[in-house]
Amino acid sequence: MLRAEVKEKLIQIVGPKNLLDSQESLLVYSYDATPNYQAMPDAVIKPRNTQEIQEIVKVCNEFKVPIVPRGSGTNLCAGTCPLEGGIVMLFTHMNKILEIDEENLTVTVQPGVITLDMINAVEEKGLFYPPDPSSMKISTIGGNINENSGGLRGLKYGVTRDYVIALEVVLPNGDVIRTGGKLAKDVAGYDFTRLMVGAEGTLGVITEATLKLIPIPETKKTMLALFDSLEASGAAVSSIIANKIIPATLEFMDQSTLEVVEDFAKIGLPTDVGAVLLIEQDGPREVVERDIEKIAEICREQQAKSVQIAQTAEEGLALATARRAALSALARKKPTTILEDATVPRSKIAEMVKAIDEIAEKHQVEICTFGHAGDGNLHPTCMTDARNQEEIERVEEAFADIFAKAIELGGTITGEHGVGVMKAPYLAWKLGEEGVNAMKTLKFAFDPNNIMNPGKVFAKETKKRVVVQR
Amino acid sequence: MLRAEVKEKLIQIVGPKNLLDSQESLLVYSYDATPNYQAMPDAVIKPRNTQEIQEIVKVCNEFKVPIVPRGSGTNLCAGTCPLEGGIVMLFTHMNKILEIDEENLTVTVQPGVITLDMINAVEEKGLFYPPDPSSMKISTIGGNINENSGGLRGLKYGVTRDYVIALEVVLPNGDVIRTGGKLAKDVAGYDFTRLMVGAEGTLGVITEATLKLIPIPETKKTMLALFDSLEASGAAVSSIIANKIIPATLEFMDQSTLEVVEDFAKIGLPTDVGAVLLIEQDGPREVVERDIEKIAEICREQQAKSVQIAQTAEEGLALATARRAALSALARKKPTTILEDATVPRSKIAEMVKAIDEIAEKHQVEICTFGHAGDGNLHPTCMTDARNQEEIERVEEAFADIFAKAIELGGTITGEHGVGVMKAPYLAWKLGEEGVNAMKTLKFAFDPNNIMNPGKVFAKETKKRVVVQR
Repeated sequence: MLRAEVKEKLIQIVGPKNLLDSQESLLVYSYDATPNYQAMPDAVIKPRNTQEIQEIVKVCNEFKVPIVPRGSGTNLCAGTCPLEGGIVMLFTHMNKILEIDEENLTVTVQPGVITLDMINAVEEKGLFYPPDPSSMKISTIGGNINENSGGLRGLKYGVTRDYVIALEVVLPNGDVIRTGGKLAKDVAGYDFTRLMVGAEGTLGVITEATLKLIPIPETKKTMLALFDSLEASGAAVSSIIANKIIPATLEFMDQSTLEVVEDFAKIGLPTDVGAVLLIEQDGPREVVERDIEKIAEICREQQAKSVQIAQTAEEGLALATARRAALSALARKKPTTILEDATVPRSKIAEMVKAIDEIAEKHQVEICTFGHAGDGNLHPTCMTDARNQEEIERVEEAFADIFAKAIELGGTITGEHGVGVMKAPYLAWKLGEEGVNAMKTLKFAFDPNNIMNPGKVFAKETKKRVVVQR
Repeated sequence: MLRAEVKEKLIQIVGPKNLLDSQESLLVYSYDATPNYQAMPDAVIKPRNTQEIQEIVKVCNEFKVPIVPRGSGTNLCAGTCPLEGGIVMLFTHMNKILEIDEENLTVTVQPGVITLDMINAVEEKGLFYPPDPSSMKISTIGGNINENSGGLRGLKYGVTRDYVIALEVVLPNGDVIRTGGKLAKDVAGYDFTRLMVGAEGTLGVITEATLKLIPIPETKKTMLALFDSLEASGAAVSSIIANKIIPATLEFMDQSTLEVVEDFAKIGLPTDVGAVLLIEQDGPREVVERDIEKIAEICREQQAKSVQIAQTAEEGLALATARRAALSALARKKPTTILEDATVPRSKIAEMVKAIDEIAEKHQVEICTFGHAGDGNLHPTCMTDARNQEEIERVEEAFADIFAKAIELGGTITGEHGVGVMKAPYLAWKLGEEGVNAMKTLKFAFDPNNIMNPGKVFAKETKKRVVVQR
């Protein structure tokens, strides 16, 4: 519970309507989309502008009250779970698209804008914001920036970080800084813009962002290639890239995912194959036609069992939707779905998927794998039951093995979901103790009272396990 | 001069051949490509590997000896001038291309590799490293990363930062960290990769880098459009982008630059026009043809006096070479050439160039302007004489006015050259005191003894001038 003095100061800033602390409100914001994590905040606050946020941060810094900035809470690393209490900060009042600048190809937004709303608004003007996290229908841009969200188009177009060019940020000491600008080139000092992207709300509160846009691709084409084996699909991925083609999306589903998706979506996907690649290319019509033909040829060379090119936009959309439905489909099977995002260099995809299968077998847990094959970003997904403590422990052991394997292959513990609470114990496996120490140095230089989203990124304890040698 | 004890420790690490402190050696490394800055180092050191660098850093940190990492010294912000003495660190022994990975589209290099050598090596494999700083024939990749170098292709392809995906860095405390990986997606902790890019050697020594590559564009076409007025050329730039075309390069030269370039290169450029745009598009043949035709049409609509499309690759190259020769050509005119890189949002180009002309007039100095119109990155270049103290003061006043104007238009004091010593007094104009303080917090958290390239980025004194309101 907040001290009366603190509560009063906060109410003075945002007004009584914008500070919630009823049991129901606290309960609603005690968890996010991540299974198995819950902690009660002391209050929920809804500031109306940057100045209010600045004042809130100053009060919280003085009284050492944690602040957990939260968009729609769709993250999968428990990044917005208020682990150490404090206030959950919502951006429901700061949800405006401030400007779409067609001359400089930028959009300026408040953090509370829903990602898809912004995407739709810029597409109406013939412009394109490529990052497309699966949660985009409900996620906010502020959340995307804090998590450096990825998506299906990462291979060709990059991730959120690649589109953030200017930020307004309230630092833990209450200073408001503006980074970057509507500028393709800016080297005036350290790159605080990218430092804030993906910092998971641990370095400050993002209050405004300017994003780079590009012209919308002229056209798009979708295809599906079926393979008997994982290895064949992996070889096809490598061969497409080695042939100097960078598709807009290059998605992978293993046999078990496919089965579940077809059962859910009923669009006639075959379920007796080893792996599927869903491939989209976008761009000028001639190029798309040529690339898709060439990709089809490569898939056939790599022993694809069948290659199906969508003949209409609707057919393409149905295929893409099937892939996007993977998580929902898997979530139906068991009470708890744990979706991870171990990521490896693209050339190691087949090896990694095979290792995941072996690890699942070893720990006797059920894991399906799908994901962004083009950028090596896999989503091994475990269907389990959080109430079964014994099974959950095996699940955790399995994921620990998966992270270790990813790192062994030159990969990382998280490609797009963030560290949050969930992966904090494994961070040193990727970065080494020196790397984690460097990050702690930075964190505590900015936030000596540890008020910004405490308990995230840095674990109190790391897993007792030999650090993987790189 | 180094203390005998320090010198001995350093010699123990690198061997006597790799520690130079003759007067000639010190003189050679007392300055870089930036006019008007010179300071003698105490020694020059040439480590052979990361471990030696780690040991050197530890000694320097213990004895508080400055380290100035230096590639080829081509920077234009006095970033490698050893302002506070200490040792200049050279990477002549660490100049290998370690790997070109065709499956993952990456190249891994040591910092001392010459940029163009690496570009040529990857192009031989059909791959492409887009950043093309004008100094690429002699600059090193390590230097490019430390300065976050730009180039002519920034508009379409971005800058060095957009291609660095993994680094090995020796931190000021001697810890060696590895950031990132051969990964399109990696959100394991703060983005130290991009934090190090453009940090101008003030946060650590970069000892290895992995860079992202893309497939080499199929073809390229070049054109030249002449305009009677600045405004017309600026309108053409805006209109090209507004028509959703992103050319590979979109370069601008004003009338006075043109005159000097033609006098130097003698390739038949007209000198009686107000401004010239040099435009290149690359990509699939059909798209290039279509884009170039469309761009020509737009230029004509915007009152271009003439539009000339290069019919052969050689003709295209001649045009591009003329633009690349701008600095050399200007440098012939007067003993001292000061090249700046004030940058504005693309839509403000014409306004900015006009303001530069007025500022030059006001201070009675000679300034030609050329640069990367597509990304708003201008190079107002002053031809002067460093021996004429009175004139140099006027030149400095003029550049101060130019920086203030750039910021007023939403721009920055440096688009691609870096802050170094030269622009340090102006940094607060762009970032505000809060922004500079945040950067200092970071710097001194990592480098409390200020051994890494001291005197850069942060000025001892800022210009006594009202901070420009944003």
